[in-house]
Amino acid sequence: MDEAYFRTMLFDFYGELLTDKQKEYFDLHYNEDLSLTEIAQSEGISRQGVWDIIRRAEESMRRYEEKTGLVARFGRERSLIDSLEHTLEALLPHLEGEPRTMAEEMQKELTELRHGI
Amino acid sequence: MDEAYFRTMLFDFYGELLTDKQKEYFDLHYNEDLSLTEIAQSEGISRQGVWDIIRRAEESMRRYEEKTGLVARFGRERSLIDSLEHTLEALLPHLEGEPRTMAEEMQKELTELRHGI
Repeated sequence: MDEAYFRTMLFDFYGELLTDKQKEYFDLHYNEDLSLTEIAQSEGISRQGVWDIIRRAEESMRRYEEKTGLVARFGRERSLIDSLEHTLEALLPHLEGEPRTMAEEMQKELTELRHGI
Repeated sequence: MDEAYFRTMLFDFYGELLTDKQKEYFDLHYNEDLSLTEIAQSEGISRQGVWDIIRRAEESMRRYEEKTGLVARFGRERSLIDSLEHTLEALLPHLEGEPRTMAEEMQKELTELRHGI
């Protein structure tokens, strides 16, 4: 997982455990791509003040992850789902009739699994 | 998810976020099946004291779950994995040779996925 993706996952998993301000500024900066200066201006606080809140948000989420390891677990699941999807794709051309319908059903379920987790 | 299984999942996901005492007593009572009286005696505190700690542990984990919904997400994933395993099992007898080997590979990956999450 690259750093930006890891940060997105941290926010996805633990964002609701942040304070309202932490959640808001983190989201504006990393997801909505607003600069610290832009957030500072619209909030009427210093650029440093914005950064302190975002930094504390990230530290807090990293502590949750250090303890629970749930994002890392998610990463391992994601690799297995990738692998299952590849194998199924390679299997499909060998099938026709009912077996093919079943494999296509599995494809749908794997897509759901990918989007559900 | 029945209540006992849900509690096991709460502890699996959020147990590391509890205090040491909360974690220890919760584990002794619900996983090691020790009675409140047994824990109280070995710890030299009141039965009520043990129960208060366990109750607060559970409340704390339920609050994490209310906010993040990660255990519920896990439950939905688990159902999809069940369904994938069933479809694959029904598919296997239709296959031989290379396609069968591929399907068996998928079976292994699904088992890993089930145990990894």
